[in-house]
Amino acid sequence: MRMVDLIEKKRNGLALTKEEIQFIIEEYTNDVIPDYQMSALLMAIFYEDMTDEEITNLTLAMANSGEIIDLRSIEGVKVDKHSTGGVGDTTTLILAPLVASVGAPVAKMSGRGLGYTGGTLDKLESIPGFKVEISDEEFIETVNKSNVAVIGQSGDLAPADKKLYALRDVTATVDSIPLIASSIMSKKIAAGANAIVLDVTTGDGAFMKSLEDAKRLAHTMVRIGALADRQTMAVISDMSQPLGEAIGNSLEVVEAIETLKGNGPEDLVEMCYVLGSQMVVLAKKAKTLDEARAMLKEALTSGKALDKFREMIQNQGGDTRVIDQPEMILTAQYSYELPAKSAGVVTKLVANEIGIAAMMLGAGRKTKEDAIDHAVGLKLHKKIGETISEGESLLTIYSNTKEIEAVKELLYENIEIGVSAQEPKLIHDIITE
Amino acid sequence: MRMVDLIEKKRNGLALTKEEIQFIIEEYTNDVIPDYQMSALLMAIFYEDMTDEEITNLTLAMANSGEIIDLRSIEGVKVDKHSTGGVGDTTTLILAPLVASVGAPVAKMSGRGLGYTGGTLDKLESIPGFKVEISDEEFIETVNKSNVAVIGQSGDLAPADKKLYALRDVTATVDSIPLIASSIMSKKIAAGANAIVLDVTTGDGAFMKSLEDAKRLAHTMVRIGALADRQTMAVISDMSQPLGEAIGNSLEVVEAIETLKGNGPEDLVEMCYVLGSQMVVLAKKAKTLDEARAMLKEALTSGKALDKFREMIQNQGGDTRVIDQPEMILTAQYSYELPAKSAGVVTKLVANEIGIAAMMLGAGRKTKEDAIDHAVGLKLHKKIGETISEGESLLTIYSNTKEIEAVKELLYENIEIGVSAQEPKLIHDIITE
Repeated sequence: MRMVDLIEKKRNGLALTKEEIQFIIEEYTNDVIPDYQMSALLMAIFYEDMTDEEITNLTLAMANSGEIIDLRSIEGVKVDKHSTGGVGDTTTLILAPLVASVGAPVAKMSGRGLGYTGGTLDKLESIPGFKVEISDEEFIETVNKSNVAVIGQSGDLAPADKKLYALRDVTATVDSIPLIASSIMSKKIAAGANAIVLDVTTGDGAFMKSLEDAKRLAHTMVRIGALADRQTMAVISDMSQPLGEAIGNSLEVVEAIETLKGNGPEDLVEMCYVLGSQMVVLAKKAKTLDEARAMLKEALTSGKALDKFREMIQNQGGDTRVIDQPEMILTAQYSYELPAKSAGVVTKLVANEIGIAAMMLGAGRKTKEDAIDHAVGLKLHKKIGETISEGESLLTIYSNTKEIEAVKELLYENIEIGVSAQEPKLIHDIITE
Repeated sequence: MRMVDLIEKKRNGLALTKEEIQFIIEEYTNDVIPDYQMSALLMAIFYEDMTDEEITNLTLAMANSGEIIDLRSIEGVKVDKHSTGGVGDTTTLILAPLVASVGAPVAKMSGRGLGYTGGTLDKLESIPGFKVEISDEEFIETVNKSNVAVIGQSGDLAPADKKLYALRDVTATVDSIPLIASSIMSKKIAAGANAIVLDVTTGDGAFMKSLEDAKRLAHTMVRIGALADRQTMAVISDMSQPLGEAIGNSLEVVEAIETLKGNGPEDLVEMCYVLGSQMVVLAKKAKTLDEARAMLKEALTSGKALDKFREMIQNQGGDTRVIDQPEMILTAQYSYELPAKSAGVVTKLVANEIGIAAMMLGAGRKTKEDAIDHAVGLKLHKKIGETISEGESLLTIYSNTKEIEAVKELLYENIEIGVSAQEPKLIHDIITE
């Protein structure tokens, strides 16, 4: 087999076979196929797309390029949850203890944030002492004991995907649905889950700006999951405005704690019920979504979910005092209000730009190497559809610098006040095949 | 400027500016832009095509990436001729002395053969002592003295093209009209010509299999030439069967000598008149194509053209005895006839496969590193449309081995005898804009 012939085959619009895809991924991972041939193939895939069978073979080849976590020693159906990224998306922090508290095991590997998109690991690390790097053995032991652990992805998980992602990033081949789908699913499969709940976000703050693309990505991943023998479903959720009210690491941890105490923002709570019910049903802890939702509601009201979060923090070395005194981690030196310049109804809160404003404060990374400041961020007081008076605060800026003019300017540019606006639909679709 | 943004721009179907193209070619030639980004761009160009302005800017940037030969010290309009490749294409060997003999300066840089396509340098080197590597100064001096010199391309001509071509070869991005056009034209412009006659071949033995593609390539190159201030025209010629009768280096030199003596095969002679007339008109040595053709005919009949070839061989250190005793270079040990298996009319002589048969004998190179055997090749006795009896020889095989079964088999597979066939049209079109 010669790589140049396989590039030409794809370029001519033909589907690659399982053996051809395995050859490509193995030889590329082993540095036999050079980057310059791989990038030509990636660009051809960008134009020619791939069949479901090709994407599945690509996903499995990438999953098999490194370690596959063996979660069989954890009893029950292990359900993983993945979001394609958002702004103020605190769901994992809430869902992990919430779902675990009703008996479904949550053995979750999460990532870090990049650009305007936050990452669960960064958020958890704003809890003093919280460790996200633990051994596979300790990870499994913890889940067996407490039903929950959220850790960083091990270095050797899907190394082909890691290498490919770095190449796509510099060759304008990131936004290709077969490549995005196989990248996400290869990591989920290598992480050992039996079932997968996908949160595919859409809107300004999401990777998939259009609903149509989000649906295509969701359908593709659900079909890959089925072909790879992992029960998979996807929720298409809205990311035209940030989810919940908090954007920034400590701020989102506090929001998660408040939500687990029953005081969460409506959209965030609803999102957690929708995703959580799916997880509980896939884990076979409830027969219907309604039953699952009732169980989750009870866990929130009774304090069971909050107790589970305390246990999770304790297990991973974190300071559990944060549960009772969440304000202890809100250590930003300065806070500023952003007054509305006119009265009316909030009509726009452009999610990605607001995410960039938080990044400029230090809450996110421009490049992988950047350090982040856990304490800073934004707290929204008004969401789309809410009325506001002139001079009333739109949001609070938490900062460790007084130089926030550029941040304020960007925020004003991306918040619109008008006459009327409908609250955006939170869930656009549920995809199960 | 970031290469990744330029790849994305092209990928999104936008045209690159002159500055962007210059940046890409300069930084790539200087090894700043890596191959993996360039190959992604090449694949995007394959899909998105380029505007005439982009192709012209690319051509000029590649021409300017190295030395530009300065032919100003040669008086008159310097006309170059380029063929996109063929089988048995002996025209340059004939045209160089023929056109020079009527007063148009021919300062020509030629290439070597690869695959089933022959190369003028290899052919010339079958003349004992003939030197194709001479200095730029000696080259210019020779043309000033004798009006003709045919040499190898200097190493530093269009280095960007050399690097790009090697990359295209392994990334399935060879057959892209903007990339082919800019590759050819950058070398012609760097070689210093004022005017360019292109022979764009089409058919099985050509790079452009379809007439439509050949026309598109021709139009593209003619427009680039005009935009780059080089008067350019193209002849679309047929390469469904080999041109002339000889295929192989010494055999083609002998055929060229015979043609210059007035005994050439009809199609080859006509092809030389068509291309030669265009060259003479562009060089302003005749006002009309008819006038030019009459001059060329006279030069052939009078022996002036043959004398010019003798002078050219002498100037470049070759053994001029070859003119009077051409058989001295036909040194293959064995010759075999290929008898027709049935009587009828020749309906097919698949040019590229016949070229491959000659390559298998040693007349051509599979890879750039292969050595070639100047003495071997094929001499056709029948062309498409000619009648043949059963057992009559279709062609003679000149070989230095007795192991020619595979060659014979390939030849039989690609020569068809039927009931009737029209002689293929030699010239499909003349493109001047």
